[in-house]
Amino acid sequence: MRIDIITVLPDLIKSPFEASILKRAIEKGLVEVHFHNLRDYTTNNYKTVDDYQFGGGAGMVMMIEPIDKCISALQAERPYDEIIYMTPDGVTLNQGIANELSLKGNMIILCGHYKGVDQRVRDRFVTREISIGDYVLSGGELGAAVLCDAIIRLIPGVLNDETSALTDSFQDNLLAPPVYTRPAEYKGMKVPDVLLSGNFAKIEAWREQQALLRTQERRPDLLEE
Amino acid sequence: MRIDIITVLPDLIKSPFEASILKRAIEKGLVEVHFHNLRDYTTNNYKTVDDYQFGGGAGMVMMIEPIDKCISALQAERPYDEIIYMTPDGVTLNQGIANELSLKGNMIILCGHYKGVDQRVRDRFVTREISIGDYVLSGGELGAAVLCDAIIRLIPGVLNDETSALTDSFQDNLLAPPVYTRPAEYKGMKVPDVLLSGNFAKIEAWREQQALLRTQERRPDLLEE
Repeated sequence: MRIDIITVLPDLIKSPFEASILKRAIEKGLVEVHFHNLRDYTTNNYKTVDDYQFGGGAGMVMMIEPIDKCISALQAERPYDEIIYMTPDGVTLNQGIANELSLKGNMIILCGHYKGVDQRVRDRFVTREISIGDYVLSGGELGAAVLCDAIIRLIPGVLNDETSALTDSFQDNLLAPPVYTRPAEYKGMKVPDVLLSGNFAKIEAWREQQALLRTQERRPDLLEE
Repeated sequence: MRIDIITVLPDLIKSPFEASILKRAIEKGLVEVHFHNLRDYTTNNYKTVDDYQFGGGAGMVMMIEPIDKCISALQAERPYDEIIYMTPDGVTLNQGIANELSLKGNMIILCGHYKGVDQRVRDRFVTREISIGDYVLSGGELGAAVLCDAIIRLIPGVLNDETSALTDSFQDNLLAPPVYTRPAEYKGMKVPDVLLSGNFAKIEAWREQQALLRTQERRPDLLEE
């Protein structure tokens, strides 16, 4: 997998890729992530990437021309399966979309900023619009980092213990059950007896029940799907 | 506002706070953000923060003791309004929660990692559990950065143009209308005439109609609330 991220703030988004699981995936050669500074594709001396919106109103809009130049330069090098635009009015990311995207080859992720990109960019270039949730962020960079993390950890070989991802929340429309580790008692708070019983059938049954209970209490909507 | 972020990977989360709007908010003194490395609160020589889960199964669990020590040290310095745990089975973040949290004083954000924290941490210390969406990430760090961004940009004085946040998606349960900037025509693609008309009443009406249309098409659920 190769991911090209187009952004006006490459410095903002770099650290998540330089630590932990994403770093390891890159080092293992399981994914390549490249950052492209949109300002390198401007044609004016001021390296302007945004302008006032037509019709007036607060907030700047990202211009089509530098984005066109950047995407075209990338497409001249290789084909892309998806050109994804991070935007709060996109399709809300969920584990199913993450699973689907983890099977792709080359992807471009375009990070919006300010009031977003000129609508013609969306009409002409973008194949998917993704939101990471119903809230507004300063820009698409954190959304892009979240999307990459959700996808990359699903690529086989990235997680040390592959069975771990399968028991995460959402993979089976259930939240994960409570977890405990040592010590068995801490300041009067005890671990449930069943987990110390060594009876794995009982432990499994308890976990399933707890996962269902937690989902019913917190996210009954997941059970309706 | 003061935010204390407890993490095992402080390097992973730093860059988003060193650029753009978050950086400016910190420089203006509108918010303080402090990172605490959980490994500084361990008591063993290996600086272990996690251990195998009771009852068996893949994935490590973060131990209660270092978290207790870190939170207690912070609470000895000042009172906290919220101790937030980032977890996929928490309450899903939305703009309303972001608005509410933007009015708080001091907050601790605890980032989960591996299989999450020992359940007793959640029972004893945590006042709110927040998820940024229905997908699983490598850890709570990106979630914490997303939460901070969503909150901090709402603090008065952080955005240069305060009216800008008010016309964002979700603030009125509507998605934002399409936006356009120069040039008026690009490779045959034209900006809608109404936006060039100079008739602000018509422009306003078009934007309201487009926002409603886009919300009906993409997110009818927002209109039912």
